[in-house]
Amino acid sequence: MSLKTFYSSHNVRDLTNHMNAHHLLQNLSRDGLHDAHTAIEEAWHACLKQNLSISIERGIPSPAQLQLSQALLAQPLDESYVDDAGNDCRNYGAQQGLTAARELFAPLIDVPAENIIVNGNSSLAMMYDCVSWAVRHGVPGGENPWSDDSQAAFICIVPGYDRHFAICEAFGLRMIAVPMLEDGPDMQVVREACRKYPSVKGIWCVPKYSNPTGTVYSDSVVRELAGMRAAPDFRIFWDNAYCVHPLAGYDRQLADIYAACQQAGNPDRVLAFASTSKMTLPGSGIAAMGASEANIKWWLKHASVRSVGPDKVSQLRQVRFLKNTGTVRTLMEAHRQLLKPKFDLVSTVFEYVLGAQDYVRWTRPEGGYFISLHTLPGTANRIVKLAAQAGVRFARPGSCYPGHLDVQDAQLRIAPSYPDIDELRLALTVIAVSIARATAEKLSRSADA
Amino acid sequence: MSLKTFYSSHNVRDLTNHMNAHHLLQNLSRDGLHDAHTAIEEAWHACLKQNLSISIERGIPSPAQLQLSQALLAQPLDESYVDDAGNDCRNYGAQQGLTAARELFAPLIDVPAENIIVNGNSSLAMMYDCVSWAVRHGVPGGENPWSDDSQAAFICIVPGYDRHFAICEAFGLRMIAVPMLEDGPDMQVVREACRKYPSVKGIWCVPKYSNPTGTVYSDSVVRELAGMRAAPDFRIFWDNAYCVHPLAGYDRQLADIYAACQQAGNPDRVLAFASTSKMTLPGSGIAAMGASEANIKWWLKHASVRSVGPDKVSQLRQVRFLKNTGTVRTLMEAHRQLLKPKFDLVSTVFEYVLGAQDYVRWTRPEGGYFISLHTLPGTANRIVKLAAQAGVRFARPGSCYPGHLDVQDAQLRIAPSYPDIDELRLALTVIAVSIARATAEKLSRSADA
Repeated sequence: MSLKTFYSSHNVRDLTNHMNAHHLLQNLSRDGLHDAHTAIEEAWHACLKQNLSISIERGIPSPAQLQLSQALLAQPLDESYVDDAGNDCRNYGAQQGLTAARELFAPLIDVPAENIIVNGNSSLAMMYDCVSWAVRHGVPGGENPWSDDSQAAFICIVPGYDRHFAICEAFGLRMIAVPMLEDGPDMQVVREACRKYPSVKGIWCVPKYSNPTGTVYSDSVVRELAGMRAAPDFRIFWDNAYCVHPLAGYDRQLADIYAACQQAGNPDRVLAFASTSKMTLPGSGIAAMGASEANIKWWLKHASVRSVGPDKVSQLRQVRFLKNTGTVRTLMEAHRQLLKPKFDLVSTVFEYVLGAQDYVRWTRPEGGYFISLHTLPGTANRIVKLAAQAGVRFARPGSCYPGHLDVQDAQLRIAPSYPDIDELRLALTVIAVSIARATAEKLSRSADA
Repeated sequence: MSLKTFYSSHNVRDLTNHMNAHHLLQNLSRDGLHDAHTAIEEAWHACLKQNLSISIERGIPSPAQLQLSQALLAQPLDESYVDDAGNDCRNYGAQQGLTAARELFAPLIDVPAENIIVNGNSSLAMMYDCVSWAVRHGVPGGENPWSDDSQAAFICIVPGYDRHFAICEAFGLRMIAVPMLEDGPDMQVVREACRKYPSVKGIWCVPKYSNPTGTVYSDSVVRELAGMRAAPDFRIFWDNAYCVHPLAGYDRQLADIYAACQQAGNPDRVLAFASTSKMTLPGSGIAAMGASEANIKWWLKHASVRSVGPDKVSQLRQVRFLKNTGTVRTLMEAHRQLLKPKFDLVSTVFEYVLGAQDYVRWTRPEGGYFISLHTLPGTANRIVKLAAQAGVRFARPGSCYPGHLDVQDAQLRIAPSYPDIDELRLALTVIAVSIARATAEKLSRSADA
C-alpha cells in the first residue's frame, strides 16, 4: 500500500473522524469506548499491512544532514598538515589537543581555549573517563577516591539521558532521580540533596535543549548550581551536546556556568563537554572538555597513562572545515532546515490522528534532537510493544529514567531526525494509532473494573 | 661548529685515539685513568659547544617516515564513504569496527577478523580499558573483579615498556619483575609465579622486536605461555606493536599465540593488540584487539557504555590506504630503508668513539624501534645527566623497570628513529662521550677507594 493510499484509506480516515468526532477518549462511555476501539483496531490492522521497519530510537542525523559535511571527506591535507601553531599534526603529541581546535570550542562552551581539552571522537567517552578516574583516584579538592564512599551518588534529572545513567550503573554509583521542571531541574530538591549528603558527587546536566525534554536551564538555575553548597569533590557534568543546535528560528542563550562557578568561588565544580558529532559527522567528530586548570591538569595526568595523545589529523580536518563560530552557525542553520519539518510533523500527525486528546502530550522543543512523549500512566510499555509489532522501534521504555524505571509507565522519547519525511509520517501514524489503542485498552479495563 | 669540524676536531680525535690506544678503560692504572679522563673532559667540552637539542627519548617516526603516508592525507572520501559491507561510515554505529579494518589486522596478529575489534587511535588505550574493566568488573572466566584481590599482580618483563608499567601503577596492581632472556621472558620464573599465585592476573608482552631489547619470543616460549597453569582470569597482554616492523632484510616469524591458547584449552587467555601508528601516521592510526569470542563480547559490552562507537571514517581511510598484507609489507620496507641506517649508526659511532670497551654493550635488534644500552653498573643516571647537559635527552633512567627502579643503574634505551642522520650522529657522539666520562669517573672512584 502506498503512503497516499494508506492515508486516504477508509481505516485511517475512519479513525481520525472518530477521534475528532468523539473528542476525548477518556470522556467516552463504555459503549463509546467499544466503538472507538473498533475503529482503532481497524486502523491498527492497516498499520500492520504497511510492513514498516523504521527506528526512532536514537538521535541519529539523517543522510541529508551528513551530506552537509561532505567537504570534510574531500578536503586534502597532504600539503597542509601543519597547524597554525606549527605542530606537525601527523606525529605523536599534543595531549591537550590542537590550539585551533580548542579555540573553536571556546566560544561554544564559554570556556577559555587554554582550559579546554580536545580528545577523541566522543564527549561521552570523556565523561566516562572522568567518572572512572574520579571513582579510582578522586578529583581535585576531594580527599578520597569516590569509591571510598559506598553511598557515592549522582543526581539524575528525569526524564534524562540513558547513557549518563548507564555510566553510573557501570561504576556502582547510586542515582537520585530529581524531576525536570520548566527551566531546569527542581533546584529545591537538588540543593537539599547536595547540602545534606556529602556522598552526592555529581549531577548530569544537558543544560540546553535537554535530552529528551528540550529544556533550557534558566539563568537562575545555572547560578544556583554554581553557587549552592556541595561537597568539595562534587562535579557538575555539563553535557552541552546541543550548544548550537536550535530548531526554532533563534538560539536560546544559556548562562555561562564556568564563569558562574568561578564567581561563586567553586572554580573546580564544573566539567563542560561538547562535540562536533551532531555538527559534522557522528563518530568522526571531535570532543572537548572545558574546566578549571586543576581539573585540566588532573585529566591530562590520567589520560597520559591511557594514551600517547589524540588524533590530531582528525582535529585539523574538523577545524579547517568548521572554521569559526560564524561558519558553525551557518552549518547548524542548514541542519535546522532539515530537522525542523520532522519535529513539526510530530504535532501535525498526532493532532490529525488523535484529535484533541489530552491524555497525551509531547514537548515542542526549541532545539536538540528529541521530543518527550507523555502518555496515560500505564500505557508506555504497551505503546512500544504495539509500535514494534507494526515495525516502528522505540528505545526501551523507561530508558529516560535511572535503572529504566519509569514507575508511571508514561514517558517515551521520539527521535525524529533519521527517517526521511515520508517514512517518519508513517512511523508517527503508527505511534499515534498505538497510543490510541493502548489508551482505549487501558480505559476499557478501568471502565470494566 | 659544523658537524665536520666537530668530528675532525682535535678533541674528539684525541679522545678516540686515546680510547683505541689504551684499549679498555677498566684495565688502566690510576694514572692511566687520569690521562683518559683529561682526554674525555676535552671531548666533553667540545660536545657542550655544539649547543644541541636532540631527543632520543621515545620511538617517534621521523618526518621522512610520515611522508610515506602522505596519500592518506590526500585521499578523498566524499564519493566513497560506504564500505564494502554497505555501512555508511559517516554515521554512528559499528562498535566492533569496520569489517575491512578487522580483515586488515587479521593476518597481522593471527586472529580471525570476526574476533577482532578495531577501535580508536591507540592500542595502549585499548589495553588500559581492558585493565580498567578487569579491575572493576573482572574478566570472562574470573569470578570476581581483580580489585577484590589486594595482591593482584602483573608480570613485568625487564627491561620492558614503561607505559605498560604505568598502567599497573595507575590501577594499584603489583608488579613482578621477570628478566628478559635471549628468546623471551625467563619462563621458569613466569611458570612458577603463575602456578603458585592466583593473584597473578596478567603479563605484559611485546613478543616481537620487544621494547627495548628487540627480543623475538621463541616458539617454545609462546607455547609455554599459552599452556602453563595460571588463574582462570589470568590474561596475556600481547602487545604486538612491531608485528611487521623488521630492521633486518627479513622478518622474524612469531608463533601464533591465539591458536596456541585455543589448542591448550585456554582460549580466553590472550588479548592481542596492534595498531597502524608506526605503519601510517602516529596518533591518527587505528588500533585493534584480537581475542576469544567471550573476551570480545566482554569488551564490547563495557565499551558501549563508554562511547557510541569508533571513528569509522578514519578506519576507512586506513583500509583504503594500507589495502592488504602485501601492500603493508611494501610500506614497511620503505620504513626499514629509512630506519636501518640510524640503527647501524649506533654501533658505528659507539665503536669509533669508545673503541673496544667491554663495559658497555648494546642490542642490535632485527626489528622494532629501540636499542637497549647496558652500561657499567652505577653509571646510567650519570650518563643521562651528562647527555642532558650537552642537549641530548634520554627517557628517565630506570624507565624500562617497574617503578623506574633499575637497581643496577645500568640500563638505558636509545630510540634513534626521529632525528635525522646528522643530528643522530652528533647525539650518539655525545652519548658515547658521556658513557666514557661516567665510566672513567666511576672507575676512578673505585680506584681511589
